Amino acid sequence: MTAANHNARLHEQLQEILKLLNKQKVVEALVHRQDMQKRNLVESLVHKQNIVELKLKLDLLHPADLAYVLETLPFDDRLILWEMVKPKRRGEILLEVSDAVRESLLAEMDHKEILAATEDLDTDELADLAPDLPSATFSELVDSMDGEDKAQLQSVMSYPEGSVGSLMNFEYVSIRDDVKLEAVLRYLRRLGDLPSHTDKLFVVDRKGLFKGILPVNRLLTGEAESLVRDNMATDAVSFRPEDLADEAAKAFERYDLITVPVVDSRNRLLGRLSVDEVIHHISGEFDSDMLSMAGLRQEEDLFASVWKSLQNRWAWLVINLVTAFIASRVVGAFEGTIEKLDALAALMPIVAGIGGNSGNQTAALIIRALALGQINGGNLRKLIAKEIYLSLLHGVLWGSITGFLAFLLYKSVPLGVVMTGAMMLNILVAALVGVFIPLGMHKLGRDPAMGSSVLLTATTDSMGFFIFLGLASIYLV
Amino acid sequence: MTAANHNARLHEQLQEILKLLNKQKVVEALVHRQDMQKRNLVESLVHKQNIVELKLKLDLLHPADLAYVLETLPFDDRLILWEMVKPKRRGEILLEVSDAVRESLLAEMDHKEILAATEDLDTDELADLAPDLPSATFSELVDSMDGEDKAQLQSVMSYPEGSVGSLMNFEYVSIRDDVKLEAVLRYLRRLGDLPSHTDKLFVVDRKGLFKGILPVNRLLTGEAESLVRDNMATDAVSFRPEDLADEAAKAFERYDLITVPVVDSRNRLLGRLSVDEVIHHISGEFDSDMLSMAGLRQEEDLFASVWKSLQNRWAWLVINLVTAFIASRVVGAFEGTIEKLDALAALMPIVAGIGGNSGNQTAALIIRALALGQINGGNLRKLIAKEIYLSLLHGVLWGSITGFLAFLLYKSVPLGVVMTGAMMLNILVAALVGVFIPLGMHKLGRDPAMGSSVLLTATTDSMGFFIFLGLASIYLV
Repeated sequence: MTAANHNARLHEQLQEILKLLNKQKVVEALVHRQDMQKRNLVESLVHKQNIVELKLKLDLLHPADLAYVLETLPFDDRLILWEMVKPKRRGEILLEVSDAVRESLLAEMDHKEILAATEDLDTDELADLAPDLPSATFSELVDSMDGEDKAQLQSVMSYPEGSVGSLMNFEYVSIRDDVKLEAVLRYLRRLGDLPSHTDKLFVVDRKGLFKGILPVNRLLTGEAESLVRDNMATDAVSFRPEDLADEAAKAFERYDLITVPVVDSRNRLLGRLSVDEVIHHISGEFDSDMLSMAGLRQEEDLFASVWKSLQNRWAWLVINLVTAFIASRVVGAFEGTIEKLDALAALMPIVAGIGGNSGNQTAALIIRALALGQINGGNLRKLIAKEIYLSLLHGVLWGSITGFLAFLLYKSVPLGVVMTGAMMLNILVAALVGVFIPLGMHKLGRDPAMGSSVLLTATTDSMGFFIFLGLASIYLV
Repeated sequence: MTAANHNARLHEQLQEILKLLNKQKVVEALVHRQDMQKRNLVESLVHKQNIVELKLKLDLLHPADLAYVLETLPFDDRLILWEMVKPKRRGEILLEVSDAVRESLLAEMDHKEILAATEDLDTDELADLAPDLPSATFSELVDSMDGEDKAQLQSVMSYPEGSVGSLMNFEYVSIRDDVKLEAVLRYLRRLGDLPSHTDKLFVVDRKGLFKGILPVNRLLTGEAESLVRDNMATDAVSFRPEDLADEAAKAFERYDLITVPVVDSRNRLLGRLSVDEVIHHISGEFDSDMLSMAGLRQEEDLFASVWKSLQNRWAWLVINLVTAFIASRVVGAFEGTIEKLDALAALMPIVAGIGGNSGNQTAALIIRALALGQINGGNLRKLIAKEIYLSLLHGVLWGSITGFLAFLLYKSVPLGVVMTGAMMLNILVAALVGVFIPLGMHKLGRDPAMGSSVLLTATTDSMGFFIFLGLASIYLV
């Protein structure tokens, strides 16, 4: 099936599921309204048939598609559907849904259900779920694992979030460097099934130390009689578990990688990082950047309770409230000036607003350049110089236009001149804070996007009012 | 090398390159200052040695790393370095740099240099560069191609930007369904080298119609005597060239794909989409979303000329200017009211500011949900209902706090009540525009992120002033 077809089909399936779900809710409502004893046999049959049909549909969906359907459903419908998913399949689906939705689903599952859902997962997958599982359930899961799995799980979980170690898996094929390609081919045939995304085999020596990689393509096209050692690449990219996932993602993008071995400081092979995890990581990072720029603490389930949403959003709104009051006190300090010339009250939001927007443009470019690692000691000065020149140009341009309009509106040349001067100064301030807020956040080891727009607007508002009303109080009244 | 090592090394190399570059600039300056005839032989030798060393360093860098170095260099240094890159390598590097930097590099190359840089590129790579090449140069390139390449190039270029067809390549291995795995292995060995990312072979019948895929892993582990037909998967994902790249990217992420065949409506195999192009596409989309939210028209070379930057940024600033004047006129309409009670001028930015921030939070979540395809007819009403409830809660919360603070500051109960009412109403307005601006953009077939923050702030400013000053003029003065 093609992508367009596929999408159309997925939407059709979603519609069908919704229809069946609604039918079922109607039947349930009817059944509830009647006395249990009088329950009509026919209705009960329709009900059962409905559920069977719905379950059948769900069984045929890919886990990722089912995750998508669950994410788009309002809370109640989501839980009704979740109850119909086979216990064994729930583990894979929990891995695919967003953190917020995962929480909502796990909250409805009891101990036994969680055990059933997770017992077939790989250790790295289990590690992904671990933070969200009830601790008693998680301990029981760990206790039931064999030694190797337990060691792997502890290894993955020992690395902090955002590290390569926390994303790696253990599904790789390792071979010795002193065997013939022929023998490798026989070995693979005996294995029967290779881990997904196996584009290369990892070569180790007798002591288990990582030596290099043998691309599967090389295995296919190489001389059967030749040794692995003579076919392997020794200069391939590898990661340490403590490397940042962001840096690893950049390497995947730059060098077009599919899988990369993860080795420790003594060069022992620990695991594998593969492109699917990297893509998920990139998408997740982008989402969090976009959301944190807008002042949200984390991703939010579209149908989260109002209370949960409030928790997610209040922190930056409080900061905003404080900064807004500061801006308000700045204006308050000039109340005498405004009283004498009330045109000032009407014009001051223009100075603040355009400063905010031009500053946000600068900040967005700096945040992006920081994410791409494009800013360093060598070019920072040039970069700041450029933003200052640009802001002077902007200042002259927008300052003259707004100054002229202010003159037209209020027939006052001095007012127009003050307007022009204030615009120029505030746009300069905006450029500086647009550069230094993200840079400062970055220096402090924080996400440069975090609330940058709230902080920036706060500065350009307060400074805009201060500059404009200050100039006005000196030159106009 | 590990990722951390790799990055450290890349930075070291960047520093060394910068040092050599600076030395060379000093030498050049000296040489210029002296009379050409008196030019000191030693200096000239140092100069040459410098260049040789620098060129050597550049030759050893991966094209993607060299692209990164070029992107971080200010304009002049970038061009000096570019001159030192071997003509043959320039094509690969042009493919890796951002659009803005690519333009700056191509502008400095003449007809011959561009031909030398591009003659070894694959047709799909050439298609990527085509829009930026001078048309005379491009025609000459096309004329020199053989028939098949020309047809491929025309095919890729006939699909609009953002479609699967515009991203596909032609590096795939296709095999017939009626041969034995053994024969396929022999065929691959004869080919010698497989296209990068070959995780599967594409199976076609005698007429060249696409039948299914044979995973390389299956080839390695399957029975040598069995037929391709009995080993291939027929239900694999495929794309049409006219499918949206965004949708294809979602499929890659959902189903963890590496390569996917592209087929036409008659099921003829046209090309291949591979994960590296998808990753580039995803990163590009993220960047453009983030930048367009801030009101930038496109990605910007960090060291673009001030003039070019102005062109990129002015459009949304003009819109902002217009909306700021509208907001200003709203305030202007209430000048009489403000004159009587100048506390209003100090308090009105609070109403506008908090509305803007809470609206931006809502908009960010909606933009993200639209990007993930999570919004549909079925859940839209619930979603709007939730945001309205939340905004009422926010309104009561922040409205009471700000109302109480306004009362404390100005010792006026009516002023506090008006403040509370205005906050509640404007936060409600903010939630509605936060939902409907992105949705409206999406309905119009536009990028929902585009300038959303500018439009949203414009509405919450104007409405905030109108509501607050309007209530004040009715109840206070």
